[in-house]
Amino acid sequence: MRYYLAFFLCLIMSIPSFSQQSKPYISLAEAKKIADAAEAKALENEWTVVIAIVDDGGHLILLRKIDGTQIGSVEVAQAKARSAVYFKRSTKVFEDGVNEGNVRMLSLPNAVALEGGLPIFKDGFCIGAIGISGVRSDQDGVIAAAGLEVLEEK
Amino acid sequence: MRYYLAFFLCLIMSIPSFSQQSKPYISLAEAKKIADAAEAKALENEWTVVIAIVDDGGHLILLRKIDGTQIGSVEVAQAKARSAVYFKRSTKVFEDGVNEGNVRMLSLPNAVALEGGLPIFKDGFCIGAIGISGVRSDQDGVIAAAGLEVLEEK
Amino acid sequence: MRYYLAFFLCLIMSIPSFSQQSKPYISLAEAKKIADAAEAKALENEWTVVIAIVDDGGHLILLRKIDGTQIGSVEVAQAKARSAVYFKRSTKVFEDGVNEGNVRMLSLPNAVALEGGLPIFKDGFCIGAIGISGVRSDQDGVIAAAGLEVLEEK
Amino acid sequence: MRYYLAFFLCLIMSIPSFSQQSKPYISLAEAKKIADAAEAKALENEWTVVIAIVDDGGHLILLRKIDGTQIGSVEVAQAKARSAVYFKRSTKVFEDGVNEGNVRMLSLPNAVALEGGLPIFKDGFCIGAIGISGVRSDQDGVIAAAGLEVLEEK
Repeated sequence: MRYYLAFFLCLIMSIPSFSQQSKPYISLAEAKKIADAAEAKALENEWTVVIAIVDDGGHLILLRKIDGTQIGSVEVAQAKARSAVYFKRSTKVFEDGVNEGNVRMLSLPNAVALEGGLPIFKDGFCIGAIGISGVRSDQDGVIAAAGLEVLEEK
Repeated sequence: MRYYLAFFLCLIMSIPSFSQQSKPYISLAEAKKIADAAEAKALENEWTVVIAIVDDGGHLILLRKIDGTQIGSVEVAQAKARSAVYFKRSTKVFEDGVNEGNVRMLSLPNAVALEGGLPIFKDGFCIGAIGISGVRSDQDGVIAAAGLEVLEEK
Repeated sequence: MRYYLAFFLCLIMSIPSFSQQSKPYISLAEAKKIADAAEAKALENEWTVVIAIVDDGGHLILLRKIDGTQIGSVEVAQAKARSAVYFKRSTKVFEDGVNEGNVRMLSLPNAVALEGGLPIFKDGFCIGAIGISGVRSDQDGVIAAAGLEVLEEK
Repeated sequence: MRYYLAFFLCLIMSIPSFSQQSKPYISLAEAKKIADAAEAKALENEWTVVIAIVDDGGHLILLRKIDGTQIGSVEVAQAKARSAVYFKRSTKVFEDGVNEGNVRMLSLPNAVALEGGLPIFKDGFCIGAIGISGVRSDQDGVIAAAGLEVLEEK
């Protein structure tokens, strides 16, 4: 009987422990709420911008281009969001770095050194990012922050 | 006096006629309506897809990825929409062509030979396109068509 | 009479409200005039350059390479024109910015920080751009400006 | 007591409802086990291959190139793994499709129509993929399958 139990335990324990770990992720519904808040902030200031939200792999979940925004911002907004996920930090960190003379950061593939890209964290995981482009980079940053504010609201 | 008039007319007529011509374009509000209709159709069928809407230059205006859609569709939906604008025709035309043996179409840069990309016309101009990817290409096509139906509604 | 009104209302209401807005655009004939002026300016100075003119989506309408121009300029001229359309501003703005120390601008996708790319505006819309490459960037800029002068001539 | 309840409710309500959902993911330790099994299979057959394992965003977790493998396989193995994750299916599905005449699949961005790429699923999520390249595509497929066998072992 004791042997049986041992054998059984052994079986249980030998069941592969593959991918028992899990990580949170962002849904389209959440992305829409973030984008709504960002869009409202942009319209409030009469700023024309592109809003891009990506998942933890840097892949687009949602993009909106406010009428009249320069088309270059379609790519820049995505690049900022991707940069924020790829390096788990605000693109402002790179902008500040470059401004302080760390020009070498410009050679980092996929890094954008302009404010407006913010990572989204949950339980220690970077689950996605928002990228804004269209106005001055500090203004882009204001809109990005406004988007992520909905994550903290009561 | 007659000379004066002639000179004056000459001046008027020599004012450059640059870019007097105009073409219609698509707004974010319209793109949202199209996307809403496409998204509703997709959810009604429990199909997971990416919806991409581009302007007349092939640049994204709006993108939505329904939860659970394969990430490959993020790029494919955009590529289908771009193909529809770049060649002013449904991507089904290329799919049918290839199916009928015109395999050479696969060497066309920016052409996608899979149903699901539809151009949007207005007054003879191609003002943009919708691209859908995620399910079978004929199903993608059903969703794309459902999106554009809002353009004809009363 | 009531029927008439109903019929009339029906007609009005069935007109789709989509894309009533319109924007000016540039024609090949206009692009040729611009290129003629730019080419004349280049030949006058014995400068070998590539002249590129793009539409509001950044797509080429016209390209001319004066004999003897370095082939690298074929891509650079297009990149400058694209940059001017994508960001609705002269590439000189980026060149000046970088020269003044705003090195971060170098991380903007599709932005070229060299004079020689000028956007073309009409009624508040950016309808295209000219890009020149081949000589010193300030000389490229002179040619680009000469090209656009025809737009203002009487 | 009422205060307690209010406080408790407040706590509950203030917890953001964002991203409560979670998905499993693959670790480097797991990737190593998979690669060990694949590598053993390759060496057993004296096949020179590249083994690539990517996460659910298509990003590399691990890559090994057995000595003597053609360098072209470094990119191909990654492309196969990416294809398997991007489209949540074996690259053999595309190979079979093309072999059966569905040549249009060749226009799918990021799809590779050669056996050797297998997605890894867990609880209904595609958590990554393995891509093998170096020998015949059916042999690449044998190695990929051998790698994933460790996931099912007791």
